[in-house]
Amino acid sequence: MRISELDTPALLVDLYRLEANLDRVAGFARAADLKLRPHTKTHKTIHIAQLQLARGAAGITVAKIGEAEVMADAGIDDIFIAHQIVGTKKIERLLALAQRVTIAVGVDSRDAAAPLSSAFAQRGLRLPVLIEVDVGLHRCGVTPEKVLDFARQINTLPGLNLVGLFTYPGHVYAARSQNEVAGITAYECRIMNELTNQLAPIAEVTDRVSGGSTPTAPHYTAKCGLTEIRAGSYVFNDRTQLDRWSARPGDCALTVLATVVSTPEPGRAVLDAGSKSLAADLAPDSPGHGMLKEDNDAILVKLNEEHGFLDLSRASIKLKVGDKVEVIPNHCCAVCNLFDEMVAARNGEVLETWPVAARGKLR
Amino acid sequence: MRISELDTPALLVDLYRLEANLDRVAGFARAADLKLRPHTKTHKTIHIAQLQLARGAAGITVAKIGEAEVMADAGIDDIFIAHQIVGTKKIERLLALAQRVTIAVGVDSRDAAAPLSSAFAQRGLRLPVLIEVDVGLHRCGVTPEKVLDFARQINTLPGLNLVGLFTYPGHVYAARSQNEVAGITAYECRIMNELTNQLAPIAEVTDRVSGGSTPTAPHYTAKCGLTEIRAGSYVFNDRTQLDRWSARPGDCALTVLATVVSTPEPGRAVLDAGSKSLAADLAPDSPGHGMLKEDNDAILVKLNEEHGFLDLSRASIKLKVGDKVEVIPNHCCAVCNLFDEMVAARNGEVLETWPVAARGKLR
Repeated sequence: MRISELDTPALLVDLYRLEANLDRVAGFARAADLKLRPHTKTHKTIHIAQLQLARGAAGITVAKIGEAEVMADAGIDDIFIAHQIVGTKKIERLLALAQRVTIAVGVDSRDAAAPLSSAFAQRGLRLPVLIEVDVGLHRCGVTPEKVLDFARQINTLPGLNLVGLFTYPGHVYAARSQNEVAGITAYECRIMNELTNQLAPIAEVTDRVSGGSTPTAPHYTAKCGLTEIRAGSYVFNDRTQLDRWSARPGDCALTVLATVVSTPEPGRAVLDAGSKSLAADLAPDSPGHGMLKEDNDAILVKLNEEHGFLDLSRASIKLKVGDKVEVIPNHCCAVCNLFDEMVAARNGEVLETWPVAARGKLR
Repeated sequence: MRISELDTPALLVDLYRLEANLDRVAGFARAADLKLRPHTKTHKTIHIAQLQLARGAAGITVAKIGEAEVMADAGIDDIFIAHQIVGTKKIERLLALAQRVTIAVGVDSRDAAAPLSSAFAQRGLRLPVLIEVDVGLHRCGVTPEKVLDFARQINTLPGLNLVGLFTYPGHVYAARSQNEVAGITAYECRIMNELTNQLAPIAEVTDRVSGGSTPTAPHYTAKCGLTEIRAGSYVFNDRTQLDRWSARPGDCALTVLATVVSTPEPGRAVLDAGSKSLAADLAPDSPGHGMLKEDNDAILVKLNEEHGFLDLSRASIKLKVGDKVEVIPNHCCAVCNLFDEMVAARNGEVLETWPVAARGKLR
């Protein structure tokens, strides 16, 4: 079947582009002697996680225990949950997971670490933990000057095994130039390297110094201070990545196939895809909510839930009711979470349908 | 079980508030002698649609055929799809639906109407259609001056039965005052009334003149020109409705229960709910992405996918890691579409869990 025969909206993956993206960032990691532990929250899809592992990933990253459970059920056995785990129900599930796969989680406070410690110690287990370091995003994480003290506290807690450090330089999405991206990457590496050295007397964390993102991925070098990077969006790329110099339009592997349902006046078309299939996320610089793969000057200037407002005034594409188009979204991770399945195609031919198995695994 | 015992993020409905909201807008409709045909895309939940019908709704509205199928399977037998239906697969499903429930759809172009006409005429059926009128949103719809001509075209097409007119005054969300809301409502009514009169010689549409929204709902009066309103968000209300004078904070029936996972510095807390559970939609005026039910001065200033950045600098609430809070979101419709189920509670006691049965029905 051709993708043009699919009902819309449909989530499409261009396999050539996907494979090229996987290889490109795997190449960056290899060139810098870094492990790649991709963040699977982007795609939430078992098949893509398996492709990443087959192409050399050292394990995977997830955001939620529910995502880890889906991936563990599929046989993936080395999982890092890059999030604090808080709450008794979640700790129970983490205990079960830790007994069947290699798992590690983030910690950034004694308040979050203490219940993990009790639960694991009670069962005679030790949970591998990585201290989250804030290198500038100011989300979670311990500030660099407090890491040594916090590591000492973690070392006093039974049931926990301090195995590493991790950070996420997400403030790179506010960078205004490629130079600034390089600067954020260099700072991340310097801080993580200094902390690794600081911690040497009290903890062996040199094997698991984890950082990275898609925009910073090309900027790491051998012995940079990290041992592993956790890029996510690189599998698909999107308008956010175009804005941050991570990709060119021809690298965007994920699109939403949509149908023109109305052309109320010249220069305007309405698609049957809105924020419930494209997500309302804005891109850092690019205007609107998406652009057509067929004509990047055709911009979705506004979304309602089930309507996409397409501005064709600067575009050369001509559209009529019934035409199908592919939208390159602003934020691929948010879009995958809105679909139950994605359609994998090569040269416009539908090859497979992959369930977005971890969609909606919010807990 | 108390809601505080639920794992997070969880979607909560406060039943007292829900019932009060249902009654309030049903009262507006009754007072203006209007039918209420609520838009169920807001909640996508069978149980709430049934509550709306039990409290006097004349039928329901949906956005997608997939939503209509879910509601029809639950025994709801009068459904308006307020959208153009374009594409052969969708028309096949519409044919099947039309043979088991009372269904009507929107049309705004001959290009979209012609395939519907052929498909229904071929089976000896007539599909009830309502012409969509653009009264100012400039999304889909025929402009008022072209409606009569378009109605004549529809009348020439076999297999279609022109039964009404509909509009959606969604530009009300850009209104800057309650006076402006009243003005938009009055204009909507005047145009729809004029068109009904214009069409009298060629089509009997006086029983189905449909409009409305949650912000305009209080402003209709008897013999205003409409016969039915299609409010959606009123069941829950949200920060968008607060901004448009439709509700007060105590009317917000839908919240996302979340846990504090990190308190990296004074005045700041991080929740385990981000754009994948709260949606990235902005409110018209209110800053950020949500506010706490417990303290409306505690604002979610930023969302990442699985992290909510809570600014407590103007709030009096004190939070520590492990605390659970309820977030009033910007846009209730987008939030419901992210959860597989919602938990109905009264006085903080969990009573029932309702599947969001039409979640993800994008087609």
